[in-house]
Amino acid sequence: MTETKPETRARTFPYFEEQGSEDVVNARMGPEVSPRLREVMTAVVKHLHAAVKEIEPTHDEWMAAIKFLTETGHMCTDWRQEFILLSDTLGVSMLVDSINHRRPNGATENTILGPFYVPDAPRYPHGANICLDGKGEPSIVRGRVVDTEGRPIAGATIDVWQTNEDGFYDVQQKGVQPDFNLRGVFSSDADGRYWFRSVKPRHYPIPDDGPVGKMLGALGRHPNRAAHIHFIVTAPGFDPVITHIFTPDCPYLTEDAVFGVKESLIGDFRKVEDPEAIAESGIGEPFWRVGWDFTLARKAPGTVPDAPII
Amino acid sequence: MTETKPETRARTFPYFEEQGSEDVVNARMGPEVSPRLREVMTAVVKHLHAAVKEIEPTHDEWMAAIKFLTETGHMCTDWRQEFILLSDTLGVSMLVDSINHRRPNGATENTILGPFYVPDAPRYPHGANICLDGKGEPSIVRGRVVDTEGRPIAGATIDVWQTNEDGFYDVQQKGVQPDFNLRGVFSSDADGRYWFRSVKPRHYPIPDDGPVGKMLGALGRHPNRAAHIHFIVTAPGFDPVITHIFTPDCPYLTEDAVFGVKESLIGDFRKVEDPEAIAESGIGEPFWRVGWDFTLARKAPGTVPDAPII
Repeated sequence: MTETKPETRARTFPYFEEQGSEDVVNARMGPEVSPRLREVMTAVVKHLHAAVKEIEPTHDEWMAAIKFLTETGHMCTDWRQEFILLSDTLGVSMLVDSINHRRPNGATENTILGPFYVPDAPRYPHGANICLDGKGEPSIVRGRVVDTEGRPIAGATIDVWQTNEDGFYDVQQKGVQPDFNLRGVFSSDADGRYWFRSVKPRHYPIPDDGPVGKMLGALGRHPNRAAHIHFIVTAPGFDPVITHIFTPDCPYLTEDAVFGVKESLIGDFRKVEDPEAIAESGIGEPFWRVGWDFTLARKAPGTVPDAPII
Repeated sequence: MTETKPETRARTFPYFEEQGSEDVVNARMGPEVSPRLREVMTAVVKHLHAAVKEIEPTHDEWMAAIKFLTETGHMCTDWRQEFILLSDTLGVSMLVDSINHRRPNGATENTILGPFYVPDAPRYPHGANICLDGKGEPSIVRGRVVDTEGRPIAGATIDVWQTNEDGFYDVQQKGVQPDFNLRGVFSSDADGRYWFRSVKPRHYPIPDDGPVGKMLGALGRHPNRAAHIHFIVTAPGFDPVITHIFTPDCPYLTEDAVFGVKESLIGDFRKVEDPEAIAESGIGEPFWRVGWDFTLARKAPGTVPDAPII
């Protein structure tokens, strides 16, 4: 290990000056810093100083920022991650997700996982109803899992979860909703087909009783996520996709609090009111019909196959 | 109050796209947001997204950042402000200070206050020794308080505090050092002159047992502040100055952990070993002599006069 003397290291930028302040800070890194950490911190300091120079905060504004970050930290527990909420509501989570899931043309786009995924939901046969308490407007979701050339993928796993008609997940209403209500795992058949019954999901607020909620309020923003059904779709040899289908008629579709909506993920929810179709469905009342195909991209050659994705 | 419908507001940038993501987020602000908050958040989001796009963090790196911020928040108590340490060590505190104290040419430069200031230190006559326990290498600090035209400012208040020879403030060593050791308040005389006796200060580490200390370690940086004497100098009708004098021979002079050193604040500490000068001083042993003038800028017309500055 080579030791570089302090004097040598800092010679180029020894003292703080407003102009070039980011270089003074970055010149301080030692010679043994990992190349990736060096790259990351150089960018962090550069953009942080650029922001401060553009904002020109007063001392009180700087202190308000310190206080906000401190309160955000204090709000974090084993059960609540306020910094993730901050990242979500500032579009950073979606940006990181987008950067890490630039898919070949035509593959289903990713969106964020969210905090309500529960592993090991029940496996169901095609056509099963994942709504265990019969509450809500019935729906039928049906489609195929295909590759980017449109060829069916048999045996793909489709893991689905969603809110009930009141905008709550089962885990938020223990004792009110049955365990594993509106969750299930399906497999595509030889033609890549899947289908299941459920109910129409509803929008819901992210937790907004902390500093992030206060921030949203000050910015004139609401905390609601646009209504959606979550999916994780996996198949051997293909990149997994974590995604949503959004309902097209949700009042928050263009204003999802965490920016999860992508145009390509808005589903075709159609209300079926034709008596004949109702009778044929066996549902016995009007229902929503959703057609949705998942297009998976083949894993790049040399990719480690099928590690757990959560 | 005008209510803008969600659809109107978000129409320009309804859905998230990697390209232009910052505009999608900023377009979400409501019409009633205060202009300054709008300006600040627009810049925050712009630079934050620019940083993420340059860094292209993996999901694990993003999670490491969330974890770091969370731990930094959890380290904050009534007695420890880890986010301020983070701001200090990334040069942000000095940058905010510089932006808020762009002084007319020739005025003494500001630097950060730090956490060890204690109000209401004893008032002393000229020549008093603020070292109450007799430990350390003696020093004499002497100079004038003048305006930017070099004219003396009489009756200026010079509030001074510093570490002992071991690099500790009195408040860090309750029961070891006498209360108010190495602290005192002086007034300039009719010619703007002041002088006092003390000891040579020593470098010291900022608290480095938390996430910021870990960060410094990973960046190959040490936690030491360059040795300095703190001053707050105030006079009616002049801008107050919060500043340091740094010792020129400190091994950390070019590497102050919080970037507090400015070239103009490095003092002229000279060792006096001449027996005649020693006898004349009445100190009875070799000592350090520091000459230091403070130059204050006249308050801009219309400025609120003499509000408390701490």
